[in-house]
This record gives sequence, C-alpha cells and structure tokens, in this order.
Amino acid sequence: METPFTHLDDEGRLRMVDVSDKEPTRRSAQASCVVRSRVDVNSLPAGPGGLDPVFAARLAGIQAAKRTSQLIPLCHPINLNDVQVEVTSDSDGVLVRSSVVTVHRTGVEMEALTACAFAALSLLNALTAHDAQARFEDLVIERKSGGKSGDWGRQVAPEAAAREGT
Amino acid sequence: METPFTHLDDEGRLRMVDVSDKEPTRRSAQASCVVRSRVDVNSLPAGPGGLDPVFAARLAGIQAAKRTSQLIPLCHPINLNDVQVEVTSDSDGVLVRSSVVTVHRTGVEMEALTACAFAALSLLNALTAHDAQARFEDLVIERKSGGKSGDWGRQVAPEAAAREGT
Amino acid sequence: METPFTHLDDEGRLRMVDVSDKEPTRRSAQASCVVRSRVDVNSLPAGPGGLDPVFAARLAGIQAAKRTSQLIPLCHPINLNDVQVEVTSDSDGVLVRSSVVTVHRTGVEMEALTACAFAALSLLNALTAHDAQARFEDLVIERKSGGKSGDWGRQVAPEAAAREGT
Amino acid sequence: METPFTHLDDEGRLRMVDVSDKEPTRRSAQASCVVRSRVDVNSLPAGPGGLDPVFAARLAGIQAAKRTSQLIPLCHPINLNDVQVEVTSDSDGVLVRSSVVTVHRTGVEMEALTACAFAALSLLNALTAHDAQARFEDLVIERKSGGKSGDWGRQVAPEAAAREGT
Amino acid sequence: METPFTHLDDEGRLRMVDVSDKEPTRRSAQASCVVRSRVDVNSLPAGPGGLDPVFAARLAGIQAAKRTSQLIPLCHPINLNDVQVEVTSDSDGVLVRSSVVTVHRTGVEMEALTACAFAALSLLNALTAHDAQARFEDLVIERKSGGKSGDWGRQVAPEAAAREGT
Amino acid sequence: METPFTHLDDEGRLRMVDVSDKEPTRRSAQASCVVRSRVDVNSLPAGPGGLDPVFAARLAGIQAAKRTSQLIPLCHPINLNDVQVEVTSDSDGVLVRSSVVTVHRTGVEMEALTACAFAALSLLNALTAHDAQARFEDLVIERKSGGKSGDWGRQVAPEAAAREGT
Repeated sequence: METPFTHLDDEGRLRMVDVSDKEPTRRSAQASCVVRSRVDVNSLPAGPGGLDPVFAARLAGIQAAKRTSQLIPLCHPINLNDVQVEVTSDSDGVLVRSSVVTVHRTGVEMEALTACAFAALSLLNALTAHDAQARFEDLVIERKSGGKSGDWGRQVAPEAAAREGT
Repeated sequence: METPFTHLDDEGRLRMVDVSDKEPTRRSAQASCVVRSRVDVNSLPAGPGGLDPVFAARLAGIQAAKRTSQLIPLCHPINLNDVQVEVTSDSDGVLVRSSVVTVHRTGVEMEALTACAFAALSLLNALTAHDAQARFEDLVIERKSGGKSGDWGRQVAPEAAAREGT
Repeated sequence: METPFTHLDDEGRLRMVDVSDKEPTRRSAQASCVVRSRVDVNSLPAGPGGLDPVFAARLAGIQAAKRTSQLIPLCHPINLNDVQVEVTSDSDGVLVRSSVVTVHRTGVEMEALTACAFAALSLLNALTAHDAQARFEDLVIERKSGGKSGDWGRQVAPEAAAREGT
Repeated sequence: METPFTHLDDEGRLRMVDVSDKEPTRRSAQASCVVRSRVDVNSLPAGPGGLDPVFAARLAGIQAAKRTSQLIPLCHPINLNDVQVEVTSDSDGVLVRSSVVTVHRTGVEMEALTACAFAALSLLNALTAHDAQARFEDLVIERKSGGKSGDWGRQVAPEAAAREGT
Repeated sequence: METPFTHLDDEGRLRMVDVSDKEPTRRSAQASCVVRSRVDVNSLPAGPGGLDPVFAARLAGIQAAKRTSQLIPLCHPINLNDVQVEVTSDSDGVLVRSSVVTVHRTGVEMEALTACAFAALSLLNALTAHDAQARFEDLVIERKSGGKSGDWGRQVAPEAAAREGT
Repeated sequence: METPFTHLDDEGRLRMVDVSDKEPTRRSAQASCVVRSRVDVNSLPAGPGGLDPVFAARLAGIQAAKRTSQLIPLCHPINLNDVQVEVTSDSDGVLVRSSVVTVHRTGVEMEALTACAFAALSLLNALTAHDAQARFEDLVIERKSGGKSGDWGRQVAPEAAAREGT
C-alpha cells in the first residue's frame, strides 16, 4: 500500500474526506496518457488553423481540470493555481502530459488525470473523423509532490522512460 | 478513411459542423475502456456501502456524458435519450462499457467515450488511494449505429473478443 | 401504483430509461412548496429593490429547472419550452408554485420540483438572515399532463384546496 | 432576531456581502429534511443495485452542495472541505441529513440546505415512479458552528428530537 | 417597433415565453463586436502558439454560446446545430463575428451575442496584459433569419458597411 | 506597457500562469459598459415586476462573474468575496458598472468585465424585443487595486468622467 485510504471512512465506506485539519501547502501532480491512431495528428490539413486540433485539446484539458470536482463525485473543489497541458507526437503516438498546481489542503492528482483525459478526448474528436479506431491508452499519474505523503513518482519501465525522454 | 472528415471545413480547418440539414434519426454508440490496478475493486471493504466505488463510477459516467458538449469544444449539445454505464471486473482488470442513445442530427460517439472516461476516472479516484499506479487503458469506440455512415463496429483481436464475451 | 416504474429496469435496478421510442408530445408539470418563517417576506425593507428576494427566488427557480438533468443523476436533458415560478404569501406562509412545459419524450415533473426547491432555497437565503428557523415544507407535484400516463392531479385536502384558491 | 441581516445592505437592498474583512475560520452546518411516501424506499427491488436510490441521492446531494453558489444568486463560491449526506428511513418516512464543513470567510448553511434538498429530489425521482404523491418536507437548518455569530442549534419539539435520536 | 415583445407577458411583466406552439424551423443569427487596443493582436509574439489568443477566443465564444440559457435567465435551452466565430483584425481594431444556427422553436440572437461577447472577453484577457485600456465595443445583432418575424438585417452606416466588406 | 505579460510564457506562448508564489492579498476591480437603445429601459411597462429587466440583469452579471474561469480558458478559479452590479440610465443610455473583490493570488479584472458583459447581455435580451438595434458599447476596466502592480485607474476623457459623475 503506497498511499493512505483517503476516500474510505473507518468502516470502509466510500466518502468525501474532511480536509479542514490539513494545512494548505503547495501541491502538484503530473499525469500522462497516449493517443494512438493510424493518422498522425500533425498530418491533418494545415490551412489557417492547422494547429487547431492540438490547441483545442490543450484548452479542453485546462477547462476540464477546473471542473474536476463537479465531475468526480468525491473530489473537493480546489482553486487551481496552474494547469498546463502539453501535446507532443512521434511515430509511436501522441503523448499528452498535464501538470497541475495548487496551494490547498488536498492533492491534485485527479485534476491532472482529468486534464489529460479531456485533452485526449478532444484529440479523439478530431481523429475519429479519419480513423474510427483511434484510442487513448495508459492514463496514469506520473508524479506528485506536497502533502503529508510527500513526493512520489511512478516507476517506469525502461522503454517508457525512453519514450518520455527521462 | 472509414468516416467522413466531419470536423474539418473545406479548407481543412477544425470547426463545428452545421448539422441542420441532417434528419434527426436514432443513433447509438458504445465505448469501452479498462482500468488496471493491483487492487481488485471488488476487494474494497464491503461495509454498508461496499458497492459504492462502482456505483459512484457509473453515475459519474452518466453525468459526464450529459455534459460532453460543454467539455469538448466542437461537440454539439444533444438531448441524450439514454446513457448506460456498466462496470465488470475479472482477474485481468475492470472493464467499463458505456452505451448512449439519442434521436438527433449527429452521432453520440464522443458522449459514449466521455461516459467511459469519467466512470474510469471515478474508479481511479477510489483505487489510487490503494495503488498509485492504477491506470486506465484502451478507451475506444466499440460500435455505433445510425446516421448516414450507418452501422460500424470495430474489429477486435480474438483475445479482446473473448474478453468481452462476444 | 399510480405510475409506471420508469426508473427501474426489469431486474429492479435503478437506471436511466431509454425514451427513444416515445413520441415527442407536449408535456407539462406543476409543483408547489411552502416556505414558513416568523418573518413575512413582504415585510423585508422596501428600498429601491424591495421586491428583490421574491424576484431573485423566481429567477433562481427558473435557472435551476434548466439544469435539472445535471443535478439529478437519472434525469434526461430536456429543452424546456417554458418555466414559470410564482411566489405569493399570506399569513400562513409563502407559497411557491412552478409550471414547466416541454415538447419531448419524457415528462417534466422533476424540473417542476427543482424549480420550486430552488426558489424556496433562495427565499431561505434571504429569510434565514432574520429567522434561522425558516424552513420549507411540502414540496410536491401538483399536476402533470401529457405522455402515455396522461393527465394527473393530486388529491388535495379541502383546506389545501382553499389555500390554492381552487 | 437571531442572526444578522447578512444579505441586506444599509438601505435594505438584497445584495451580495463583501466578506473580505472576515477571517477564514472553520465553519460547519447541518441541515435535514424528511421525504414521505406510501412506498418505503427500502422496499424497492433489491437486485444487484438495490441500494442505488439511496446512494444516488447521497451523491446528488454532495454534488449539488458544491454548486450552491451557481444556483443561489447571492451565495459566495466556497471551497467545501467536506460534505456528508446520510439517508435513514423508518415507518415515519425517510430522513435526509447533511453536514458541510469549510474553512472560509462565510458560513455554509445554504450549502447544507442545498445538499439535503437535492438528495431529497433525487429520492423523489425514484419514489414518484411508485407514488406520485411522494413529497419532501421540513427542510431546515439543524445546527451551525463557527463565524462571528458562533454556534447555533435549532430548538426542536420533543417528538422531533425523538425522531432524530437526540 | 420592429420585433414583438417576446419576453413580456400581457401585464408587462418580464417572463420566459412558452414556445411550445411554435413550429421548429431553421433559424440563424449573426452578431458582431469590435475589440480596440493600442496593441495589434497579430503582433503578439509568434512562437509555437502565436495564433493562440485568437484561437482561444474563437473556442471561448463557441463554448459560451452553448451555455447561453444558463447565463441569461430568460433564454430557452436550445440544441445549437452550428456555432462559428471569426476574428479578423485591421488597423482599426479586431472584428469579432459570430454565426449561430438551430432548428428550434425560438431564435438564436442571444446565442450569437453571447458568442461574440465571450470571444471578445477572451481577447481582452490576452490584450489587457499589454494594454489595460483595451476595450470592446459595439456588440450588436447583424442579421437573423427564420421564425415568424422572418429575416432581418440591421441598417448599417456606410463606413460600417465598408468595414464589414458588404 | 502598463501591465506585465501575465498570460504569456517566456517564449511568447499564451498559457495559464502559475500564481502559487504570489501572496493572497485583497484585490478589487471595477468595470463598466453602456447599453444603447431607442427604448429607455425605465419605460418598459411597470406592472408588478416593472423593475425586472434591470434586476434580472444585475443577477445575471453576478452569476456570470462567479463562472468566469469556466468561460475564459486561461482564467484561474477564484472564490469571489463580493460582486456588485449597478445599472443606471439617463438619456444617453444605460450605464452598467460592476465591482468585484477577492482575497487571492491573482486579480479580478476579467471577473469584473464578465459581470458587466452579462448584465448588458441580459438587458439586450429584454431590449431587443423592442429595438433590434440595441447594442452594448465600451466594455472596459475602470479601476483595479491590489497585487504587485498596485492600483490603477483608466484615464477618462472629460465627457466620460462627467457621465460617471466623477
């Protein structure tokens, strides 16, 4: 068990957790996922708005992150201080990475996951017009910092580490 | 190319598509994804609300599907007639499946994807308390019906077909 | 049993109901509730905005009705054609009445209840500043029309009928 | 007058109140209401999701509480630290109780009322399928703590006190 | 009087209007406004996202149009079939134009105005970083079509007509 | 250049700005705009709700201000401590003024602009029923205070100053 059971009460019941006694501290989280398609997102017609699918995806991810608590029942409303969504692509697929920061009493892992998920959904919205089998994969928390449980980074297999350039 | 470029105009620019000239017809879409974790969602403490994580996930998926157009910039607002989200699990992971139905001028593939994505995010919200490496994978459109492009089902590899019991 | 089990499937499981096979017809619903307080809402200081608490309540009810499906998990999104909220008061309390109309495949009872509930909550927001024991009571569907189950009106006790002037 | 006129300005005009000069302190509020129906919510078919109506109601209440400021015009946006909604039933009806906590410059009474109201509306959504005369009653603030006006609990009649087991 | 009093009842009271008896027909509306600033939006640093402020503005306008009924109290919820927002600039300022289409029982003038207003607000969000006196001006309906009152276009002064290239 | 490039990163790319390192301080902003129409908003039929268009506009502005971050992609979510919207009219038009206050890490200029814009849009919703050429003009930041850049007020031409009675 790497992390505390933060959404279960003493009787094992899913519940919102009262975070009033926690101190507001700086907390951040990064997440990532991969969009795979036979179509390269960069090959979409360039025109005057050729970068649009990627940019629309980044904005969709930012906006969705702000609404995480409205969409995930047990998440706390949080005033996010920063949300970044990056989209890069290579022959292996499109890598979506998010980073979320707050100064609050609870972490922002779900916000980082939500940002990635919605950026990826927005990319699928463009790609499925060309490739109905486009999919997104491997949505996962990459790193988090702050809070009582401190910093944490996931252990990545060597090939994945290479993929991320770390 | 299996599907028309429905979100690109003649100059290749991403845009919302005017669907006024399409006839309202019955349209449906199914999507799926898989949540993988070292923790079996069914092993979460039973208590009075032991099924809660799964049920919360199903409701989160339904509620998110209704808001797809608010979250994905180029999706049309649609009055959904039905949204179902099923969550089943076996030793291989948790399978999330959604089905969305409308009678409208445009399809509901994005709504089905959104329902799955948010049910899975809600499951991650419970599972990451136990296993920070929990992830979700393989969000994809399974089938759609209705509209000018007609019925479509993705070709699944034999093992995946077995997984879904088809 | 006066009405069908519209939110339960054949196995008794709560679910959203596919309304695709229903014809869109005109449907309406009326609901009501009562706000009781030691303070008469009409005695609030008149000033330039003396009618404000009542008017704010009417608008809050209208706006909430439009979002019913976002707030009640199994409600269908519906394009409401009309929402009216009336607030009247006498020595017995403040009567809030709502009326909602649509042309759609499902009824608008929940929308009418939601309109009343939020108008009443908004009134409580003003009244609890004076009387912390202000409360709202008796939120109930008064009448509905349209749909397969046809017209329906609740049987009211004589004193309640008198109260509503019917 | 038990509480200050917090939503009226010096000229008696309804307005939002600037809370910038108040110190953020821990504040909580509890509210309750009763749902009455000829049908016992616990007698709804059990099936795989037999507890669903109650659980859906609890989640609906939690989610609505987070949006109170969007629905009640003069409420301040607040980052809620905890929202609990309990649903219990006996022969007399279904008792819905909410508890909301924040550390902020203003109280959370409206949030507690909203949580109860939407949990009850969600229950009505299930019950009116069986009993169109189902209603909810007696939505009221039970207790609040924190802030300049300090702790407060409503005076309950003996039978109501018995009902709540206090 | 060019248009009917569609938001006033027979007693002159502002209200939502029941549109159930109107036939759903194709309706469109165009609106425009101008953003004026000492800074040319096209002179913002080009970089990898040099078109971003304009593109973000277009998406903000599209997303806001979909929520018009949530923001303007007496607007009906409408399933928009198309929303386009164009941003062009010359030495005189930045011209924002919107076009909205639906097939529904009521017009989309407010949706077109809302799309322009939010695209302009999003531009101001970028421009005020450089020029705190940036402003937007002249938000107005340009044209509408459909509905009982039929087609309508505003009479423009010659210089404005020249500006719009008509 | 009067204000820092707060929404552009070092490479000139539009982005959300991490405000975690800023101290929460009291910040306020005022904005204004003018609605012009051949119809005086005060001449609208008086009836029982004769002030309604103005009051609905004030509430619409307050509610929209609370949602600024959901509507403007790069705005931070902020818990507003106060939102005031005033509507006054003379022979020259209707002046809408907003004032927004928070204690937070970033300013509230966009919130003040959004409040004005939506109050004005709501007025247009009433006025265009009489005068389709009604428009709103001159949405601009009037003053702001707090934050590192300190207090700022726009320089107004003498006639505008007279208009505002300053």
